[in-house]
Amino acid sequence: MSLITLTTDFGTKDHFVGAVKGAIHSELSDAKIVDITHEITPFNIAETAYIIKNSYKSFPEGTIHIVGVDSELSEDNKHIALALDGHYFICPDNGLICMITSDIKPTKIVEINIHDRVESSFPVLDVFVQVACFISRGGSLDVIGKEIKKYKQLIEIQPKVNQEQTKIIGGVIYIDNYGNIISNISRKMFTDIGKGRDYVVTASRYTFTKVFNKYNEVVDDGAKDKRQFDGNRLALFNSAGYLEIAIYRSNLKTVGGASTLLGLEYRDVISIEFLPPNTQEFKPI
Amino acid sequence: MSLITLTTDFGTKDHFVGAVKGAIHSELSDAKIVDITHEITPFNIAETAYIIKNSYKSFPEGTIHIVGVDSELSEDNKHIALALDGHYFICPDNGLICMITSDIKPTKIVEINIHDRVESSFPVLDVFVQVACFISRGGSLDVIGKEIKKYKQLIEIQPKVNQEQTKIIGGVIYIDNYGNIISNISRKMFTDIGKGRDYVVTASRYTFTKVFNKYNEVVDDGAKDKRQFDGNRLALFNSAGYLEIAIYRSNLKTVGGASTLLGLEYRDVISIEFLPPNTQEFKPI
Amino acid sequence: MSLITLTTDFGTKDHFVGAVKGAIHSELSDAKIVDITHEITPFNIAETAYIIKNSYKSFPEGTIHIVGVDSELSEDNKHIALALDGHYFICPDNGLICMITSDIKPTKIVEINIHDRVESSFPVLDVFVQVACFISRGGSLDVIGKEIKKYKQLIEIQPKVNQEQTKIIGGVIYIDNYGNIISNISRKMFTDIGKGRDYVVTASRYTFTKVFNKYNEVVDDGAKDKRQFDGNRLALFNSAGYLEIAIYRSNLKTVGGASTLLGLEYRDVISIEFLPPNTQEFKPI
Repeated sequence: MSLITLTTDFGTKDHFVGAVKGAIHSELSDAKIVDITHEITPFNIAETAYIIKNSYKSFPEGTIHIVGVDSELSEDNKHIALALDGHYFICPDNGLICMITSDIKPTKIVEINIHDRVESSFPVLDVFVQVACFISRGGSLDVIGKEIKKYKQLIEIQPKVNQEQTKIIGGVIYIDNYGNIISNISRKMFTDIGKGRDYVVTASRYTFTKVFNKYNEVVDDGAKDKRQFDGNRLALFNSAGYLEIAIYRSNLKTVGGASTLLGLEYRDVISIEFLPPNTQEFKPI
Repeated sequence: MSLITLTTDFGTKDHFVGAVKGAIHSELSDAKIVDITHEITPFNIAETAYIIKNSYKSFPEGTIHIVGVDSELSEDNKHIALALDGHYFICPDNGLICMITSDIKPTKIVEINIHDRVESSFPVLDVFVQVACFISRGGSLDVIGKEIKKYKQLIEIQPKVNQEQTKIIGGVIYIDNYGNIISNISRKMFTDIGKGRDYVVTASRYTFTKVFNKYNEVVDDGAKDKRQFDGNRLALFNSAGYLEIAIYRSNLKTVGGASTLLGLEYRDVISIEFLPPNTQEFKPI
Repeated sequence: MSLITLTTDFGTKDHFVGAVKGAIHSELSDAKIVDITHEITPFNIAETAYIIKNSYKSFPEGTIHIVGVDSELSEDNKHIALALDGHYFICPDNGLICMITSDIKPTKIVEINIHDRVESSFPVLDVFVQVACFISRGGSLDVIGKEIKKYKQLIEIQPKVNQEQTKIIGGVIYIDNYGNIISNISRKMFTDIGKGRDYVVTASRYTFTKVFNKYNEVVDDGAKDKRQFDGNRLALFNSAGYLEIAIYRSNLKTVGGASTLLGLEYRDVISIEFLPPNTQEFKPI
């Protein structure tokens, strides 16, 4: 019995998610289905890439991940299935797996070609479910598609490094439930490029010369009441390993979160400048 | 072991859904529970009817569907359980099954009469769960209720046809996660009444002389970049088989969806006028 | 096989909930996981206390409840695991279990001390899951923590009674999906203190001299159409046994609910004054 996960932009009000689960249970009576999320911003590939990258690894090997974001079939938007890191992914070929594949290469990718047998205006239900159940029963990718070597990349979610290796220019790829702003700059890239140099993180008109590892590192050690730090802004590497700009204990729905309070949005620039050794601390004007 | 689905207007913040699932697991240790949705607009029967109609069929036969929308018991609002199309439904008798029963007649309907044994201000938890678990263990409907032949109809969700059979007058019954507007006019009705005639679909001040079958049929064949069609409005029969007015790749939360951009709301009129053969194409002024 | 429930303020958009479920399935291949809610207002302990208190009892004995609200580890915010009423709870020691423990004392509480083995910026994933799976496999609390006798209380969610026992002064602790306002005053306290005296419930500038047991008790018996009562305000003991101020059949998203229509918010005062026997009915000016 395989675990099947679902990641979509369907929302949870419509009948789509229920219908997909019903179809899986109709094919596999002992299926276990786990929702990753159905709240992806409609058609947002970068968000999807971030969510999948940071959730799939927690699941056991052999898990089958159905990803239904912008999945209507067209010349331009084929359906693919791939084996990667012991997991299976079934999704449109629109770049949403590229945050995973930048670290780990797929073992096999096929372009799904069962569409002649399935006329559909709801491909996640009619095509992806069928492929997932086929794989779950031990079927081989070769039977449901033909192998391909190339798949779409999404350039906008890769940060850039300048030639002198003194600057990483990234951008906002995700805003989380607390309103915290997550960039595409990973701790690994920061370490590889920074090589221990001092640095300044810049996001909008705010700068940070320290990147924490936990939210409550912003609280001074001797502090009696951590609540006095509520509302402080900080930069940290979040639990997913990405540079994040946060407001300590913020509430997006009431006082606001980092996104609303600092005025940062999806795709805005976040950068890190590394300082020459022995520089005086950078002073933003 | 039966599958049990849940469709409610409880939302997902309160403890209600968790409590219902706990109660099912307490009675049936191997229960499989699937959420259809808990985001029904409070007390909205038409929405519920649309959701159930379009999700139940994906589930395997024998599935038990608990529907908890406006389910407080009263003289006026009895609780019923029914067998239909190989499935079971447990719900208030307020019209929410009428989109299913307009196509398929129930095999048996009973008015639930176990309330004397159960004092409750939360009938989904105390009554519906008990009935569902009883059916799941193989119990007969006759034991938990007395058979009835009549149940409530919901007239507002049936479109009308004029006497000359030249016009279908329907209405908006649902607005989906993308802001798309769904009418109560089915493809079957359109075909049966239209008999191949040309037509004009009217929704608010917009008209459509073509109804697509997939969203991306709005993209011209030779188009280099489908994104140039983002924001185009279109009419299509959606994957559930109902006439839908959509904005191509819209986002209700940012730029807006069909509902906000075209100013159409729940219960607004959507109509189809069929043209006499050999008419010049209808020109809206 | 144990049931594991999840109650968090993670929201359902981010990857956090999916990652937690994946980690549980990786450790326990036959795990059954039930979401209570992930929509707790960020860092809101009183809300969490109310939700857990009212959902846990529906689950079978032996269920393990993971509660992840404000759970970053600090000197001030330890992680605890407890056995209570046949259930297990894994949570931060921040007062969120105090609505349960005010009625039922825990059998055992331990302060979790496996953190030296687990470096984490995401303790629900890295610590709570590990503890839950350990308990699920039959492990003893003593192995993952050292017993403690004291744990944090949350004073704000206990109503006060005046010395003359003529008044209960409570407050709003929760606003539900329908906008109804829930106080911390239980039916039990009302009965114990009131001893059958007449009373006046006051919430903002509204008073109520009757507390119902079901919403539709507000509808007059002979009423032809219950819809004419839509929008009436009422006080009732809700299905959880707490005093609630409601608008009959309200919709928070359209016309508004009790919270918006009556102008009542989290932490506002709701009080009950008991009248001397044989008093004329209290007349608010």
